[in-house]
Amino acid sequence: MREVAILGIGQTPVDEHWEKSLRELAGNAVLAAMNDAHIPVDVVDALYVGNMMSGALSKQENLGALIADWVGLKGVEAAKIEAACGSGAAAMRTGIMGVASGMMDCVVVAGVEKMTEGLPAEVTASLATAADADYEGAQGLSFVAINALVMRRYMHEFGWKHSDFAPFSINAHANGVNNPNARLQEAVTEKDYTNARMVADPINLLDASPTGDGAAAVILVPADRVHTSGRPIITVAGSALATDTVAVHDRKDPTWLEAAAKSAQKAYAQAGIGPRDINIFELHDAFSIMSALSLEACGFAERGQGVRMGLDCQIDLKGRLPISTMGGLKARGHPVGATGVYQIVEVVQQLRGEAGANQVENARIGMAQNIGGSGAAIATHILKIKE
Amino acid sequence: MREVAILGIGQTPVDEHWEKSLRELAGNAVLAAMNDAHIPVDVVDALYVGNMMSGALSKQENLGALIADWVGLKGVEAAKIEAACGSGAAAMRTGIMGVASGMMDCVVVAGVEKMTEGLPAEVTASLATAADADYEGAQGLSFVAINALVMRRYMHEFGWKHSDFAPFSINAHANGVNNPNARLQEAVTEKDYTNARMVADPINLLDASPTGDGAAAVILVPADRVHTSGRPIITVAGSALATDTVAVHDRKDPTWLEAAAKSAQKAYAQAGIGPRDINIFELHDAFSIMSALSLEACGFAERGQGVRMGLDCQIDLKGRLPISTMGGLKARGHPVGATGVYQIVEVVQQLRGEAGANQVENARIGMAQNIGGSGAAIATHILKIKE
Repeated sequence: MREVAILGIGQTPVDEHWEKSLRELAGNAVLAAMNDAHIPVDVVDALYVGNMMSGALSKQENLGALIADWVGLKGVEAAKIEAACGSGAAAMRTGIMGVASGMMDCVVVAGVEKMTEGLPAEVTASLATAADADYEGAQGLSFVAINALVMRRYMHEFGWKHSDFAPFSINAHANGVNNPNARLQEAVTEKDYTNARMVADPINLLDASPTGDGAAAVILVPADRVHTSGRPIITVAGSALATDTVAVHDRKDPTWLEAAAKSAQKAYAQAGIGPRDINIFELHDAFSIMSALSLEACGFAERGQGVRMGLDCQIDLKGRLPISTMGGLKARGHPVGATGVYQIVEVVQQLRGEAGANQVENARIGMAQNIGGSGAAIATHILKIKE
Repeated sequence: MREVAILGIGQTPVDEHWEKSLRELAGNAVLAAMNDAHIPVDVVDALYVGNMMSGALSKQENLGALIADWVGLKGVEAAKIEAACGSGAAAMRTGIMGVASGMMDCVVVAGVEKMTEGLPAEVTASLATAADADYEGAQGLSFVAINALVMRRYMHEFGWKHSDFAPFSINAHANGVNNPNARLQEAVTEKDYTNARMVADPINLLDASPTGDGAAAVILVPADRVHTSGRPIITVAGSALATDTVAVHDRKDPTWLEAAAKSAQKAYAQAGIGPRDINIFELHDAFSIMSALSLEACGFAERGQGVRMGLDCQIDLKGRLPISTMGGLKARGHPVGATGVYQIVEVVQQLRGEAGANQVENARIGMAQNIGGSGAAIATHILKIKE
């Protein structure tokens, strides 16, 4: 099994890209990544696309072939990989297997979602397909409503009040200010957070990540083929995906992300490290509650104490474990099928020292965790600078 | 890179399964395959699901986690793979990479499509998402209409008349009669073919495959871990997926399946064989024209002469190259995202000698080719009996 390196990264701003088609949006990210990797088109063996809703919103499937053709890769192997909001990281998994197996020497992994293509009600309905259609969706539960139930339960179980979650939102927004690709480049205060409009009690507008159009891409190659050229070589030290029930009510404990714990433990074991070795963590802060649950499942905080990491100022750029360093889903934005690839791109930016004003000092090992559904499919990736 | 074996197979009849949910349908095939392989649930590392339209028709994405949970595999890695009607074979590709890489020791690959869940107009619209939404779909071209244009052009270029395509349909239906899992278990005559109702000129009802609900599954393991137990060990000798433009009008020649040729050549090279060594061929006869084009692209017939193989009785069970041996898409049925896995299952049935009344004598090497879109994403798999 070969070690895999990330040779190039690319992304588009997360925004309302009315002027760009789905293929153009994805293509822009792919071409940026290929340019960053300095590779010609003829070395690429495959393109894997993380995407969730193109069929429903853009009336377009077969994205693999479509995007491959647009970027000049016609002929290569290509497919779309879907695991709801975890589609981006799921596509990473296939790309990594392709290169690790020796079957491929160069794979492009892209994530793309064009959400402004649908009417708001269509987008809400389509997001609900991440949940259990028969037992959650059919009861009228929207995706945010499910997360609201989980957050309310968590608050009840562990005695937190809504304002205790504020640091997650404030930190993400503060980091989004300096990220030109972020959907929301504006800081928010605790007062803004408290006064924000309610979406699904207790989740208000500043607990919820904004959707949007966006695409990100990475180039994967065998690590032993990469030559240093002034910038660090970033390798995949750990990679795992685990699942749980899709319906939250089927779990023994709705406030525990078993699939996050499982995939993180696998990734730690592969990398030969533990939570203390992680310098930055791009977690899946689609809703504030998910930040707390992710921190706990990955071993950074005790059960029910993830919120405290925010209150104790451990999560900002100078904290013990900087999270959402480029704005996270909350401020960079959450184009669902693309999000997992954005996270990988951002970890690479940090490890390369290319994170600009948001650079975390001495970041050598970074982790990304992408969640599909309300904890149903969770992938964890650990990246590091090659020694 | 490890050699991959297919340890178990499972399938449901292709039918209108009103009484079964999507997860139950897929689950039945997965459980049948696990039972056939005699493996317990705790050895399975991952489940990859080929599916195209669950989001649009069943309002359900995140199928990987959903189905894994239903069959008792909660926790394993899981994702959905989509390449339009080629989704099943695309899922096979990810499963093969998982086992070949050494990252996984046992992978379940399932294909499922529940098409009766949607209204006919919804199904037609959803099938059109396999085509180019901006340049074909937006012009009102349905998927069958695109194939009709290709068939008309082929007839014009090479001088064939409509009735020359009859043997493809007659052969498939004849083979479907003895397959209890086939959607259409009735023979048709040349007269039936000629008199069939027109769908999209020149494609009539007996040129077109029926859709339906169906699921199929296979169990992949490293070949060196399989012990003989009376039945032959079936291995993956070749596996490749290639792409082309999604829009047919973007190709130099609409009557040539470049991605079929490319993926077949790769698979032949991996297997160290050529077209003459193939004993049976499960091709993608979604429409009669696709049978002809597939035979030509894979080197079984000269350009424009694929039709002749039917007229010369080379494609039936006792012919030089039996195709659609269990009914093909035409009679077994075409539950789109499941089809590629049905094909693999049927090749295994033939190689194991379990094809019943449709058994092809001395079948030792079989090929399956699954097409996504009108030739946009094509995967070719070559299976053989391990020596």
